[in-house]
Amino acid sequence: IDTQAAKAARQRQDQLTKPQGSLGRLEEMAIRLAGMQGTASPSVDPVQILQFVSDHGVAAEGVSCFPQEVTIQMLHNIARGGAAVSVMAEAIGARMEIFDVGIATDPGPVEGVISARLGAGSGNIAHEAAMTEDQLATALDLGRTAVERALDKGARLIVCGEMGIGNTTPATALSCALLGLKPQELTGPGTGLNPEGVAHKTQVVARALALHAAAEQSPLELLRRLGGFDTAASTGAFIAAAQHGLPILVDGFIISSAALAAVLISPDVRHWMLFSHRSAEPGHRRMMEALDGDPYLDLGLRLGEATGAAAVVPLLRLACTIHQKMATFGEAGVSEA
Amino acid sequence: IDTQAAKAARQRQDQLTKPQGSLGRLEEMAIRLAGMQGTASPSVDPVQILQFVSDHGVAAEGVSCFPQEVTIQMLHNIARGGAAVSVMAEAIGARMEIFDVGIATDPGPVEGVISARLGAGSGNIAHEAAMTEDQLATALDLGRTAVERALDKGARLIVCGEMGIGNTTPATALSCALLGLKPQELTGPGTGLNPEGVAHKTQVVARALALHAAAEQSPLELLRRLGGFDTAASTGAFIAAAQHGLPILVDGFIISSAALAAVLISPDVRHWMLFSHRSAEPGHRRMMEALDGDPYLDLGLRLGEATGAAAVVPLLRLACTIHQKMATFGEAGVSEA
Repeated sequence: IDTQAAKAARQRQDQLTKPQGSLGRLEEMAIRLAGMQGTASPSVDPVQILQFVSDHGVAAEGVSCFPQEVTIQMLHNIARGGAAVSVMAEAIGARMEIFDVGIATDPGPVEGVISARLGAGSGNIAHEAAMTEDQLATALDLGRTAVERALDKGARLIVCGEMGIGNTTPATALSCALLGLKPQELTGPGTGLNPEGVAHKTQVVARALALHAAAEQSPLELLRRLGGFDTAASTGAFIAAAQHGLPILVDGFIISSAALAAVLISPDVRHWMLFSHRSAEPGHRRMMEALDGDPYLDLGLRLGEATGAAAVVPLLRLACTIHQKMATFGEAGVSEA
Repeated sequence: IDTQAAKAARQRQDQLTKPQGSLGRLEEMAIRLAGMQGTASPSVDPVQILQFVSDHGVAAEGVSCFPQEVTIQMLHNIARGGAAVSVMAEAIGARMEIFDVGIATDPGPVEGVISARLGAGSGNIAHEAAMTEDQLATALDLGRTAVERALDKGARLIVCGEMGIGNTTPATALSCALLGLKPQELTGPGTGLNPEGVAHKTQVVARALALHAAAEQSPLELLRRLGGFDTAASTGAFIAAAQHGLPILVDGFIISSAALAAVLISPDVRHWMLFSHRSAEPGHRRMMEALDGDPYLDLGLRLGEATGAAAVVPLLRLACTIHQKMATFGEAGVSEA
């Protein structure tokens, strides 16, 4: 982080024709981005969304309202432009790469989808590790190379998204393990479970945690055992983005579990993170507390796919435009307080 | 409100390829706009900002950090494109009409400013009524005709903004009178008063309330005695917008006092209001409670000028675009829960 650039941005904000601090977090956004990008003219464009679609063996435990076939259906829907994130990415003018990182059935070539399959879904964490060491290494590498490719094309903000039936369960188990929390402290309804469904899901998370409790408790090993291909790729992307000095905009519940893993693996990654929104998934609050994250939006979103991050992009752009284009007291001949 | 259109919009949201309700308030935005506009395809474009700049006699009581000359300086700055709202309006592609509704010194012709002067600032509410009955009627009419002009040009969302040194004081006094609250329950730092300044401002509000306590307590008469040219014009604009079925996006503290006046004058106006943000001015919370308003953003803004409303416009647009462009389960061949 370029503290000089951040300080200069703070000074500029204080000279713009408004009461000091009166644009609140819009000022903070510009200042933080200036510090991350080491510039007086922060910008988030181009925005790069990395969309990781995968299946999760734990879906077999009946932890979702939706059948697993929805994952492949949604992969096609995202690629064809019909999903929420497809519409939002186009509307905000963000670039998006869509990855099949391992859905249950190989869809074959799909226009607009990068086939990067790590398997036919991750392992069922209630019975086995989510992935092998090779799969974990490949997933982390996939995230890293995607970030480096985005950087080569000029990206100035990295967003990870995910889709995959059942994936709040591994995200919950992983976060419980990383934070030392009990299953009932983090488990929620996901896409819409009723109270009985949440109780069952809590038991599944508890079984997964018990199964892997005797293993090494390093964040990387917990990610391998309790995560998913989506969160592992996102973790790799976040670590690489921070290494390259690229701002990260963290999406909701699932991606926050990857953010948590990334920060526990490499604490400096935290400095490159902005937090988009408070998820309606109740456990997200604890994850934000652990990350010391203060999300910008609280609109009751609980969809994933990077949709919460996409909603914040126009605000980040406004913050940057205000920072660059507003007149100072001196320029405008306006008296100061 | 077209409850059939709102119901149809709710049904469409429930058929889009996402868990029901998972886009939270982005769904609510589209549904409310559909009901207001009586259409399956809600849109906020074109957005019309009406910017009312005026002075307030009560500034003579030393209730602001800034000297009164800042009002005329900011009028020029807004017109020249250097103010926060100028930059934001351009960035979001909103139309803006800028009105001199009565600043202390007549600036003469200013490019981009409509001269609609009701006087050389409103009366000092600690000593007299803010305006005469004629001035009030003219201000209300000014807001109404501005809305009708916007409607003729196709506007689909009305936003009022304001600028004027000292104007949190009449907004506070007016809101106290309208809600039956004590000065200390609503008075805050405005553009940045220290605690001594807030204590003094509270006394000024108390004196104004005491002076006008024996008068008729109708909302219209309280607006005349304790408001300002900016809030009176905004009140007129809000009532007219509701009469013409045009959605209103309410800005921060000052404009919320106008919203309160409008709703107390004509309760149906409430149905046409969306609330943009929670102001950092502490008393705003009580005003939102009284209006049963649940603002979309909470970013610590306290600038006015319609900047909080402008920040919400991209979210309203995203909500409308999602509503129109996302695929349904049937269209995308995605299985339902």
